[in-house]
Amino acid sequence: MSRTVYVNGDYLPEEEAKVSVFDRGFLFADGVYEVTSVLGGRLIDFEGHARRLQRSLAELEMKAPVEANELLEIHRELVTRNGIEDGLIYLQVTRGAADRDFAYPAADTEPTLVLFTQAKPGLADSPAAKTGIKVISIPDRRWGRRDIKTVQLLYPSMGKMMAKAAGCDDAWMVEDGQVTEGTSNNAYIVKGNAIITRHLGTEILHGITRAAVLRFAREAQMQVEERPFTIEEAQGADEAFITSASAFVMPVVEIDGTAIGDGRPGTVTARLREVYLDEMRKAAI
Amino acid sequence: MSRTVYVNGDYLPEEEAKVSVFDRGFLFADGVYEVTSVLGGRLIDFEGHARRLQRSLAELEMKAPVEANELLEIHRELVTRNGIEDGLIYLQVTRGAADRDFAYPAADTEPTLVLFTQAKPGLADSPAAKTGIKVISIPDRRWGRRDIKTVQLLYPSMGKMMAKAAGCDDAWMVEDGQVTEGTSNNAYIVKGNAIITRHLGTEILHGITRAAVLRFAREAQMQVEERPFTIEEAQGADEAFITSASAFVMPVVEIDGTAIGDGRPGTVTARLREVYLDEMRKAAI
Repeated sequence: MSRTVYVNGDYLPEEEAKVSVFDRGFLFADGVYEVTSVLGGRLIDFEGHARRLQRSLAELEMKAPVEANELLEIHRELVTRNGIEDGLIYLQVTRGAADRDFAYPAADTEPTLVLFTQAKPGLADSPAAKTGIKVISIPDRRWGRRDIKTVQLLYPSMGKMMAKAAGCDDAWMVEDGQVTEGTSNNAYIVKGNAIITRHLGTEILHGITRAAVLRFAREAQMQVEERPFTIEEAQGADEAFITSASAFVMPVVEIDGTAIGDGRPGTVTARLREVYLDEMRKAAI
Repeated sequence: MSRTVYVNGDYLPEEEAKVSVFDRGFLFADGVYEVTSVLGGRLIDFEGHARRLQRSLAELEMKAPVEANELLEIHRELVTRNGIEDGLIYLQVTRGAADRDFAYPAADTEPTLVLFTQAKPGLADSPAAKTGIKVISIPDRRWGRRDIKTVQLLYPSMGKMMAKAAGCDDAWMVEDGQVTEGTSNNAYIVKGNAIITRHLGTEILHGITRAAVLRFAREAQMQVEERPFTIEEAQGADEAFITSASAFVMPVVEIDGTAIGDGRPGTVTARLREVYLDEMRKAAI
């Protein structure tokens, strides 16, 4: 069955969903993206994603293709047309199509807007949330502006393959001896009552799920420390986990072959996952 | 007039030259490229570009879409169909189209191959070769594997815009106090009889033009020093220049507002440009 995909104003069968070979997203990775989860047919934290998209566009001096309310309508239309109960909506904006030149094209060049869905039945009941995932550490070799959510994702993609080759699920990236984040998620450790995750900056993505989880943690009187940590500190922590829009809060039970805590998902992680899903389902639109 | 563009076996009018929105080149910048110059209707150093393409593909464990001899035929067919006397042929290979996942798709996924031409009448007679170009320095914020010619070109693109905003032509990138290279070219200085350019490594692109120019320089008994240099050393040099497949050898007459030598293109640079163009025209196919 073919999905319906949105491309620049049109709803098309996925086989016909194409962009020009001159699109700067294809030629220069000159594009940004967002992924929004759908649970029970409703959007999780759409506002957060729409806001971060605006920031990414602004940082790159890129035009917004449509207003936020129209963006919401497109998301909802795709959910309906593709009958998505649980799944993801992927959105990408690029600087548009123009003859190839490193310099940006004329200011009146229309940006490209693409959205598509991925059905993920039982997205919030992933078996991995019960068993936890295993990660390896790899050097962080990405560019210097990871706070902008660009499609320059080759290294994270390579990192995922390195993890698979090592029999693991994901990789945590390390720079100057400190963990930055996972390949497509933010990284956390738990020590006693404290949740520790790297502070915001150009070194990591400003996770939408990260912001919500830290808010819920503070509301639950947990201690939040936003600071760097090493792989060694993580290996000695009580718990470890990741957050992302599609994995929500996911326990990490092994780092570079060392079991975290007793090697099973931790109670703080489980509680944060539960609170996050409960609250976000309530607020879903 | 519409160009004829090559996409996966088909020669298409440029308006119809499209790739799937699921192409990993579009979603993950999971693609590599080459640009070959055409002078007098013939390809400059095709062998060098074909060889580097193979290396880029191998480094990323990406399949070659066609054999080298077929690649040559496609280049020639595009030159003919588009009546290119002087210009460029752009080539891009991606890991192909597959539902979005950071992990690489199934091994039998067909890579995407796109080629298009850009007519550049008088490419070898650029006025800039007589006046020289001005560059600024910017921090090098690219990823760590610049020796692989990937389409992760957003930062070089931003660098070109920073240069334009400063009234200059290009930017030299600096890492740990040393120049790596220009946004889309290798960087050189000349001191006395010595040509100085950064040594090969993961920090810079292994320029095809760089290799040829250094060979010609050595054959002409010039001293070649492959080592890093600072912006300050460059500002105090006798001459400066860049090399790339499309700019050939191009003099740099100003760096961060400081004139190089007497502020005019140097004689060593001019000689290297002449030798390069003479030799490469002779060897063109």
